[in-house]
Amino acid sequence: MTPPRSVEEHAEHVNRLLAPLSAEPDVETVLLADAAGRVAATDIRSEVDLPLFRNSQMDGYAVRAADVARVPVALEVTGDVPAGHEVPLTLTPGTAIRIMTGAPVPTGADAIVPVEDTELVLGRDDDLAGAVVEIRRARRRGEFVRERGSDLERGDVLVRAGTRLAARHLAALAAAGVSSVAVRARLRVAVLTTGSELAAPGRGVRFGQVFDANGIALAALVEESGAMVSLRASSSDDPAAFAKVLDAALAASDLVITSGGISKGAYEVVREVLLPRGAEVTTVAMQPGGPQATGVIDGVPVLCFPGNPVSTQVSFAVFLRAPLRAAAGLPPLPVRRVRLAEAVRSVPGKRQFLRGRVAEDGVAPVSGPSSHLVAAMANADVLIDLPEEAEAIEAGSDVTVWTL
Amino acid sequence: MTPPRSVEEHAEHVNRLLAPLSAEPDVETVLLADAAGRVAATDIRSEVDLPLFRNSQMDGYAVRAADVARVPVALEVTGDVPAGHEVPLTLTPGTAIRIMTGAPVPTGADAIVPVEDTELVLGRDDDLAGAVVEIRRARRRGEFVRERGSDLERGDVLVRAGTRLAARHLAALAAAGVSSVAVRARLRVAVLTTGSELAAPGRGVRFGQVFDANGIALAALVEESGAMVSLRASSSDDPAAFAKVLDAALAASDLVITSGGISKGAYEVVREVLLPRGAEVTTVAMQPGGPQATGVIDGVPVLCFPGNPVSTQVSFAVFLRAPLRAAAGLPPLPVRRVRLAEAVRSVPGKRQFLRGRVAEDGVAPVSGPSSHLVAAMANADVLIDLPEEAEAIEAGSDVTVWTL
Repeated sequence: MTPPRSVEEHAEHVNRLLAPLSAEPDVETVLLADAAGRVAATDIRSEVDLPLFRNSQMDGYAVRAADVARVPVALEVTGDVPAGHEVPLTLTPGTAIRIMTGAPVPTGADAIVPVEDTELVLGRDDDLAGAVVEIRRARRRGEFVRERGSDLERGDVLVRAGTRLAARHLAALAAAGVSSVAVRARLRVAVLTTGSELAAPGRGVRFGQVFDANGIALAALVEESGAMVSLRASSSDDPAAFAKVLDAALAASDLVITSGGISKGAYEVVREVLLPRGAEVTTVAMQPGGPQATGVIDGVPVLCFPGNPVSTQVSFAVFLRAPLRAAAGLPPLPVRRVRLAEAVRSVPGKRQFLRGRVAEDGVAPVSGPSSHLVAAMANADVLIDLPEEAEAIEAGSDVTVWTL
Repeated sequence: MTPPRSVEEHAEHVNRLLAPLSAEPDVETVLLADAAGRVAATDIRSEVDLPLFRNSQMDGYAVRAADVARVPVALEVTGDVPAGHEVPLTLTPGTAIRIMTGAPVPTGADAIVPVEDTELVLGRDDDLAGAVVEIRRARRRGEFVRERGSDLERGDVLVRAGTRLAARHLAALAAAGVSSVAVRARLRVAVLTTGSELAAPGRGVRFGQVFDANGIALAALVEESGAMVSLRASSSDDPAAFAKVLDAALAASDLVITSGGISKGAYEVVREVLLPRGAEVTTVAMQPGGPQATGVIDGVPVLCFPGNPVSTQVSFAVFLRAPLRAAAGLPPLPVRRVRLAEAVRSVPGKRQFLRGRVAEDGVAPVSGPSSHLVAAMANADVLIDLPEEAEAIEAGSDVTVWTL
């Protein structure tokens, strides 16, 4: 047992342990349709010009600007280009071609006159044979014409490496014809809960058993932090049983997290199995969540949280959420200063993380400092972070809160 | 064509159209393991007391408080209760039983002395036969004993209806043995893009075609807003083709959204098919995104956005994101006031939504007011919302920005 660490010291230790996971992320290629929320592994460059071709910005008539310099002027309508028209037209000087937004501008035309500045004086919208359009407003060369490549040229970067792909990035990629992208592989995280007393929810419990809350909570926390659960299992306090599930987890994962089995009791399976394999158990000067263990086993970082469900969730929030989110390209959850709505007491020498709720008048604890109240934790929306030296903090003081 | 509407008026209109979708959400039952991010459809009450049984809050010794009132005192160790021990023990007065955190407190014991306040004076940790423990600190009745039901009693609410289920809620539900929950069904939203010029990304394009950016963008926006895509399809400008895919969408969906085909051109398939079925096309005094259409067809609300990819994305952000998120129990994305880092010009009479990026010195547009720059939109992280009457806004002014 090393001497107690501060929360900062242990957080730095965990960050060092996990740093290799972010340094060289694995890359996988996914379809654009599956890429929302993933992180671009490389700069993605356009292989085409955008727009792909010179096209009209308005519904109207394609003309030569020189032919509409003096208005009103009547021009013969010699053609019609709907969007998607696949044969390039050529404009005869002194005439007009009807054009729709996004349709290719005919060769020889250099301006679009929007339909609201025109009137058909011969012919009908649905029959342009022999039609004549009166142009009522002059347009300069280039007006309402989008030149090929004016949005983006071939080779330009569409999305930078490290960008978390949202709808607007997918739209730009799709517009450039990209249909699959190289993204960072999600970290594979194994979740192992330990304790002979654990029973799976949904089954009956015998006397002395408790339902396993940590497996589902850690799995959800891992996934909401942008990683994936490679294996989820619950082990009894039998060292051989735990060693077996640990080895399966190490083989399948970039990171293994465990809950339980690391305090000072007589049946601490995680301690028993991990210490001989090079892990260290530490006391961190915090409440809840004091006992913590870490190690690198078979090249895989292993992080061990205490078994109490609130301690486990607080440990994850304090030590693992930020590095996992960073590895996944997600922004950190906000840590901010909020007014304390009621006075709180703390235990000097231990940094306290109280479960709190933020309301109009500030933040207040949802329950006492007990670390055991899993139902109270569900009602919290923040952790109230009280410094190590604090003993009593008055209502109205500003405190640091971590978003859950 | 009705007269132009303000953005507020159209937003209210859309909200009225969609209100029935939130009023009586469908309910489905999902496994707890699949419930992260879903919204509880009802209050979920515990069917058990938590803790399930009277248990120890510490590793240590279960004693009668009366026997340790004067310390130090040596007590015979008459038993050992690991966590998960399934046979209730009974404490003989004047003796101690070793106990682990979470293990059932023996009948007759009323306090736990933590292991650090004790020392085995006879026997060993791994062999308690004939052991004697010296107790060095007195403990009051009830200390470190968690009474059955002290966290939560049977019938108490674990999670309120309307709660979006995060890890801490799943932990509380699991701890109470709940293995499946009734959640609001996700809204089924069909995404239809229209335009004969549209080609699917990943294939070649012929002259005059453009890649469909709206299908993937709208699908991603729908999913990140907590709904699900019931059908995604692209239709040509042929009315019969569009009518067919529309009917399939109406049959399978709670809401249908379309892009394209609603402006004043000659080939406006959405107008052509929807107007006879009771939809209305509106001009909204905004840029981009002016033309908008809405209706209820076969009992299903239909929302039609203009086809330009930036107009489509801005329309979604302004009109559809908030009601979809509300229906899914997600909080609205923040709308806030930010300092303008550079002067901008606007078009009086139209509310402008410029694509902007927020930096240290404030927010600045990523590009001009053109609505066509899908690659520029990808670089934005907010929409800068300029009021209808604005013409020129100076650097340093506060403007409203919508988070993308």
